[in-house]
Amino acid sequence: MSELRLNLVTREWVIIASERAKRPMDFMNARPERPQSPPFLSSCPFCPGNELRTPPEQFRLPADGAWKIRVVSNKYPALTDGERKRMTDGFRRAVTGVGVHEIIIENPVHNMTISSMDQRDIEEILRTYRRRFIAAHMDPRVEHVIIFKNHGEGAGTSLLHPHTQLIGTPVVPVQFRERVQSAMHFFDDTGDCLLCSILKKEMDEGVRVVNDTEHFLTFIPYAALSPFHTWIFPKRHSAAFSSITEDEITDLAFHLKTILSKFYYGLEDPDFNYVIKSSRPEDADNEYCHWYLSIVPRLSKAAGFELGSGMFINTSIPEKSAEFIRSVRVE
Amino acid sequence: MSELRLNLVTREWVIIASERAKRPMDFMNARPERPQSPPFLSSCPFCPGNELRTPPEQFRLPADGAWKIRVVSNKYPALTDGERKRMTDGFRRAVTGVGVHEIIIENPVHNMTISSMDQRDIEEILRTYRRRFIAAHMDPRVEHVIIFKNHGEGAGTSLLHPHTQLIGTPVVPVQFRERVQSAMHFFDDTGDCLLCSILKKEMDEGVRVVNDTEHFLTFIPYAALSPFHTWIFPKRHSAAFSSITEDEITDLAFHLKTILSKFYYGLEDPDFNYVIKSSRPEDADNEYCHWYLSIVPRLSKAAGFELGSGMFINTSIPEKSAEFIRSVRVE
Repeated sequence: MSELRLNLVTREWVIIASERAKRPMDFMNARPERPQSPPFLSSCPFCPGNELRTPPEQFRLPADGAWKIRVVSNKYPALTDGERKRMTDGFRRAVTGVGVHEIIIENPVHNMTISSMDQRDIEEILRTYRRRFIAAHMDPRVEHVIIFKNHGEGAGTSLLHPHTQLIGTPVVPVQFRERVQSAMHFFDDTGDCLLCSILKKEMDEGVRVVNDTEHFLTFIPYAALSPFHTWIFPKRHSAAFSSITEDEITDLAFHLKTILSKFYYGLEDPDFNYVIKSSRPEDADNEYCHWYLSIVPRLSKAAGFELGSGMFINTSIPEKSAEFIRSVRVE
Repeated sequence: MSELRLNLVTREWVIIASERAKRPMDFMNARPERPQSPPFLSSCPFCPGNELRTPPEQFRLPADGAWKIRVVSNKYPALTDGERKRMTDGFRRAVTGVGVHEIIIENPVHNMTISSMDQRDIEEILRTYRRRFIAAHMDPRVEHVIIFKNHGEGAGTSLLHPHTQLIGTPVVPVQFRERVQSAMHFFDDTGDCLLCSILKKEMDEGVRVVNDTEHFLTFIPYAALSPFHTWIFPKRHSAAFSSITEDEITDLAFHLKTILSKFYYGLEDPDFNYVIKSSRPEDADNEYCHWYLSIVPRLSKAAGFELGSGMFINTSIPEKSAEFIRSVRVE
C-alpha cells in the first residue's frame, strides 16, 4: 500500500506511490541524449570573446586578465531598475517590476558542468553567490533573493553554458512567509529549530543520507516531493546563506560536486534545478529559520493532480533512491 | 517595465514580464506535432473491445449495450482500499495510502478530444464528474476530491485516449486549506465572496474575458500564473461543484468546448491540464468558498525560480492573451 508522508518543511503531503513505484535505474535517461557540445561556441553569448554581447559586467574574477567567473545583468530581465511603487484600485494589488536579475557565468568553458569542475572552481562560484547575495540585499527595494540554477531544457533553460541566476524581488514570496511561520510554530512547540531537528533525525537513522561530513548533510528527504529530490543542510544553525564560512564553502563545494556527479553517472546527466533557500543577511541569527540548498532532478512531470492540490505523487521510495545514489561510483 | 501582480486566489505574486513578453502567436507549436492517431487502437486499454484489460468498472453509460462513458479504478493507483491509519514517531507524520483513484474514460473514440466532441457528449462527461465526485465523498476515509485532466505528454500523460482522473485523498491538501483561509479573511474584511467579487470586476472591465454567458464566465486571470492560464467561474455562488444544475451543466459544456477549441486552433493543440477546485458537497452553502475550473496550457516550464519561491514569471500579458483568444475562429 502507498503511504502519505508529511513534508515538515513545505507542510505538503506527498503520496509515496509504492504500487506504481519504479526501480531507481528506471529513472535513467528519461530524455533523449544531449547532443555533444564543444568547449567553445562562437555563437554563445557567455563564451570568452563575446563579452560585449552581454549587458554590463557587475563582477568578474579575477579582476584583470582572462576571467574565470563573470556576473552580468540578465539581457531579458524579469525585474529591472526603477522606482518601487505599490498600485491598487482598492481591490487588486500590483507593484512595479523593480529588482535585481543577474546571471552568474560559472566558468569560461562552454560545456563544463559542476560535476566535472575542479572543486576549487566550485568554491569560487559559491563565494560569488555569497558576494552577490549580500550585494543584492543592499538594494533597499529588494525584499527577498533567490539563487537558482536551471540545467537542461526540461529544467527551463536552453542555454548550455554553465550559469546560475540571482533574482531579488520587491516583495516577499508567500511560500517563504508560510515556511517561516510553520518553522516558528515548531519552535513554539519544541524550543528547537525544525531543520536542526530534521538533521539530527536523518543522521541518527542514516537510511536517506547520501553524504555526511563535518559541515553539511546531503540526503533525500523523508517526504521527497519527486524522485531524487535532494536537500543539502548546513549543520551549523544559521538562517542566512550569507553567513557561510570559508570552511563551510569548501565542504559545500564537495557536497555539490558529489551529488551532481552521482546524478550525472547514476541517472545519466538528468535535467535539474537547484535553489538556495535563505533568509536575509540581517536575519542570520533568527533562531527558527535555517538556510538550505534544494536540488530537484526533473525526472517526472507535475500533472493535473499536483497543480490542483499542491500535493505530490512520488513514484520512487526515498530510502531506495538514497541507497542507489550512495552506491553510484563517480569516475 | 515589468509589473508584479498579486493573484488574490492563490496569494502568489506573478511577475508579468513585459520586457521579455512574447506575442500570443509565439506560443504556438511549442512542441513537435503530435503524430496522427487512429479512431481505434487495438493496443489501447481504453478502446472498446479491451474492457477486460482495465480494472473493474465502477460506472458505465448507458448501462447496457455499447458504452459512451466508462469509469474504472486506476490500474496503478496512487491510493487504494484499506484502513486509514495515522502513523507518527512523535516527529514525523504519515497516513496509510487509502482513498479513491478512478479513470473516467470520456468517449469510446481513441482520438477524440473535447474540442471536437458533440456538446451533448461533454454534458454527459460533466454529469459523470458530478456523480463520481459525490460518490467519492461518500467514502468516510476521503477528505478531499480532485478531478483533473492531463492532455499530452507535456501535461503528464502518455495515454492519448480521452480520459479524466479523480483522486480522493485521506487528508486535506495544505494548498486548499490556505486558499479557504484567505477567502475567509476577504469575507471578514468585506462581507463578500472573493470569487464573486472577481467575477463582477472581470465582467465590468471585459478586457480579460473570453466567454460570458448566463451561468459562467471564462477569462484569463489578472495575475495569470503562466501564459493562457484560464479560469471558468460559475456565476451562481456555490462552494461545491456537486451543486451544479442541469442548466449550468449545459452552459459549462459550452464554455469548455469553446475555450479548448480556441486553444486547439489558436495555439495548435497545446498540452494542457484542467482541474476542478471545489469544497466538499456538504460545504456547498459555505458563504466564502466558490468552486471553479482552472485550465493550464503547458506553454512554459516552471524553472528554478518558480520552484524556489512559489512566485511565477509569466512571459505573456493577460489582456493581450485574452484579446488573441477572443479573436480565434473555431471551425
